[in-house]
Amino acid sequence: MTADIWDVVIVGAGLSGLSAAHLLTKRDAKLRILILEGKDRVGGRTVSFEIPAADGADRWDFGGQWVGSTQTHIMELIKELGLEVYPQFNVGKKVLHVGGPTSKVRSYRTSIPALSPLVLLDFTQMLWKFDRLCRTVSVQDPLRTPNAAELDSMTVHSYIEQHAWTEELKEQLGVCSRSVFGVEPSQMSFLFFLMYAAAAGGLLALLESSPGCAQEFKIKGGTQQLSECLAQRVGWKNVRLGSAVTAIWQSWSSVIVFQLNHKTYSALQVWSVVEPAFRSKIQYQPALPSMREFLTQNMPVGHMMKFILTYQTAFWKEKGFSGEIVAGSSTDCPFCVTFDATSPRGNPALVGFISGQQATLWSTREAGERRAAVLSSLVKYLGPEAASCIHYEEKDWAKEEFSGGCPVSVMAPGLLTFYHPSLRKPCGRIHWAGTETATLWCGYMSGAVQAGQRAALEVLAEV
Amino acid sequence: MTADIWDVVIVGAGLSGLSAAHLLTKRDAKLRILILEGKDRVGGRTVSFEIPAADGADRWDFGGQWVGSTQTHIMELIKELGLEVYPQFNVGKKVLHVGGPTSKVRSYRTSIPALSPLVLLDFTQMLWKFDRLCRTVSVQDPLRTPNAAELDSMTVHSYIEQHAWTEELKEQLGVCSRSVFGVEPSQMSFLFFLMYAAAAGGLLALLESSPGCAQEFKIKGGTQQLSECLAQRVGWKNVRLGSAVTAIWQSWSSVIVFQLNHKTYSALQVWSVVEPAFRSKIQYQPALPSMREFLTQNMPVGHMMKFILTYQTAFWKEKGFSGEIVAGSSTDCPFCVTFDATSPRGNPALVGFISGQQATLWSTREAGERRAAVLSSLVKYLGPEAASCIHYEEKDWAKEEFSGGCPVSVMAPGLLTFYHPSLRKPCGRIHWAGTETATLWCGYMSGAVQAGQRAALEVLAEV
Repeated sequence: MTADIWDVVIVGAGLSGLSAAHLLTKRDAKLRILILEGKDRVGGRTVSFEIPAADGADRWDFGGQWVGSTQTHIMELIKELGLEVYPQFNVGKKVLHVGGPTSKVRSYRTSIPALSPLVLLDFTQMLWKFDRLCRTVSVQDPLRTPNAAELDSMTVHSYIEQHAWTEELKEQLGVCSRSVFGVEPSQMSFLFFLMYAAAAGGLLALLESSPGCAQEFKIKGGTQQLSECLAQRVGWKNVRLGSAVTAIWQSWSSVIVFQLNHKTYSALQVWSVVEPAFRSKIQYQPALPSMREFLTQNMPVGHMMKFILTYQTAFWKEKGFSGEIVAGSSTDCPFCVTFDATSPRGNPALVGFISGQQATLWSTREAGERRAAVLSSLVKYLGPEAASCIHYEEKDWAKEEFSGGCPVSVMAPGLLTFYHPSLRKPCGRIHWAGTETATLWCGYMSGAVQAGQRAALEVLAEV
Repeated sequence: MTADIWDVVIVGAGLSGLSAAHLLTKRDAKLRILILEGKDRVGGRTVSFEIPAADGADRWDFGGQWVGSTQTHIMELIKELGLEVYPQFNVGKKVLHVGGPTSKVRSYRTSIPALSPLVLLDFTQMLWKFDRLCRTVSVQDPLRTPNAAELDSMTVHSYIEQHAWTEELKEQLGVCSRSVFGVEPSQMSFLFFLMYAAAAGGLLALLESSPGCAQEFKIKGGTQQLSECLAQRVGWKNVRLGSAVTAIWQSWSSVIVFQLNHKTYSALQVWSVVEPAFRSKIQYQPALPSMREFLTQNMPVGHMMKFILTYQTAFWKEKGFSGEIVAGSSTDCPFCVTFDATSPRGNPALVGFISGQQATLWSTREAGERRAAVLSSLVKYLGPEAASCIHYEEKDWAKEEFSGGCPVSVMAPGLLTFYHPSLRKPCGRIHWAGTETATLWCGYMSGAVQAGQRAALEVLAEV
């Protein structure tokens, strides 16, 4: 048992924890900062690696990948670290398939989907209702939202059932929920959904790849670089990988952090702890306030499987497709959305997501069966060339230890109403980071940076 | 690091784990069984201790306390262990207060509350609807329930909003949710609620103290005795208290259980593990199937504070009251229900619950303030004699380590639909007990016994 003394221990070397460490180091180079990470890598819910591609091999993001120009915290970090962004390719026909496995597959070029006049009207009135409600939401303190308790007592599903007129729109909203949150509309509080959209500037900002929206840019070389560059600046010697924290004990004079590392057990005396991990399996002494435990232990995390397919040629572009496919749960298609993922070096690729109820269903099947189903759907939507990929690679985030899911932990009904005040409130010397605690682009990489910086500022005020 | 060899390690010495151990021991006395418990006592969510009373001191239950004649598993265990039950006292006027802090406090003697004709009609039609739906629910496989996905996509709150006509009934249903589950109607799936009621034989069975209902009998000497007697039969030498399990690693040949015990770290080779703990902070290698993790880590646990007040005389009985008070959340009253809790030895007492949103609110206040508010409400409802108690003792289950809440973990919307198949399904050599996995009286002590015995039978089939 060691008893090293540190000023700040940061639990988790994701974007939020490392952003906290980076800001702390910049403000006070004398601070002794230790970052403990359970995984054998930095990056948390961002990870980039090489797979076979047209010119040999190339690197893709298998976790968080998009950033947008209104995401100021991440854009500033990208600039500071000297990284470059490039736009999401979205030129050409988009494919839409809803209304059952045998329904017509539609394609359209505008930003408005190819919908029947009735569905279009339904879509418009729903967007109007969502946006009107979004504007009433206080992201900082959602309980101040008019009618907050009622909005938080219903699921997104219940709101949709009450306000959408057409089955087709209901199915499309299911795709939105699955692709943005990794959960079904039935698993989420409607007030949480509104708060999340409001933190991004509105619902359309979450869904689109146009300027200012969530899917605007990607980062050359991959998003995991952000964490690697941050670890570099903070000093790799201060980052301990494969070092899961099992317990945090606070006394009047200090905090002791215990870790389970290769069957040994060490204790670290520290001044402050920044804990970005939601759903962590850490034992606290004294116990955390019950509101805090109820909140963080009851936030369902999304289930997303992300896949990348590499090709010799971007045949979809040649055929006038953008690569964007939206498929509803009533179809036989395992994925909810795909996009073009051609690399900056020009290696053609598609990226897609199996998410929510489809992830639950498809994660229990064999990998080969899943691959075959994805390819078969792509053939249906983009043509027979889709069958001949160079490589299919997938990542099931539910199987990722210390994450347990992706992209974000959402709130079930009632959680906001009763427990939200504890979301960002420090517990003694433990400060809370993590994108779930952000007020701008909550749930996104930008939110992770914002939250980490906010936690760092709290610690600086204390040290 | 030790490497003891055991046939079965049971995690948690609550009623479910000990029932499993008891059955295993009875069936095969040669089995080497070890029970690891994080707390410094057996009993899980049942605990009984002495407090000052009229004749000096007496023992009360501060966790689970009631059993009923239709709860066959617990009734058989009580008989086998040689314990005795006695009926919940319910003779006399009951008090009902809903409709705002200044509304009239009503009292009634029948099993039907003193309601206006309109509210009574509303109450009747809602009960009829609930019971009709309950009869369609398959407890064993709730996904076979007609319209299952829709019923699981809404909160209990949403169903009530759609089907109850009067504010008064809505408020009373809030009391039901709080007193039975420790959560608000907004925090629970409607299908889960129906399944839970169906497992008890209907909604009224959950609410009443009449024969066959959940609040029919109490156990002389307290419910913690059940676990103590079971530990005695299994052998106290096999029960290790203060021994929290931190990790369970499975290989093809065995299971290794790690525990964090007084800063040492030991490993135990075992054949099977019975794990009754929901929401446990255990690290698994390999990771549990994602459906299992999503289910158990996302079940909100109730928040209940239980209090016992002892008196010199049972003044409420002398005044014709039964001791039963029902108070809605619109009143200023901190508790939702009270009952008579006079001990078998005749020491007068009242028992009550601060639960759900009221627990969230009141748990942040000082203990003295809470006590004063409870007494002030009792004075309002039962008379000035209520102010002069001998002793006020309370237990906040949210603060109990390794429980985190009480009485039960419920399911938020969408959990049943997507993850229910993993509720009882063993993961390799790990078998799941706990009252949450019961099919009869799920959430009750009887369910804990049923679930423990079922897990034991699974293990016997394997060993």
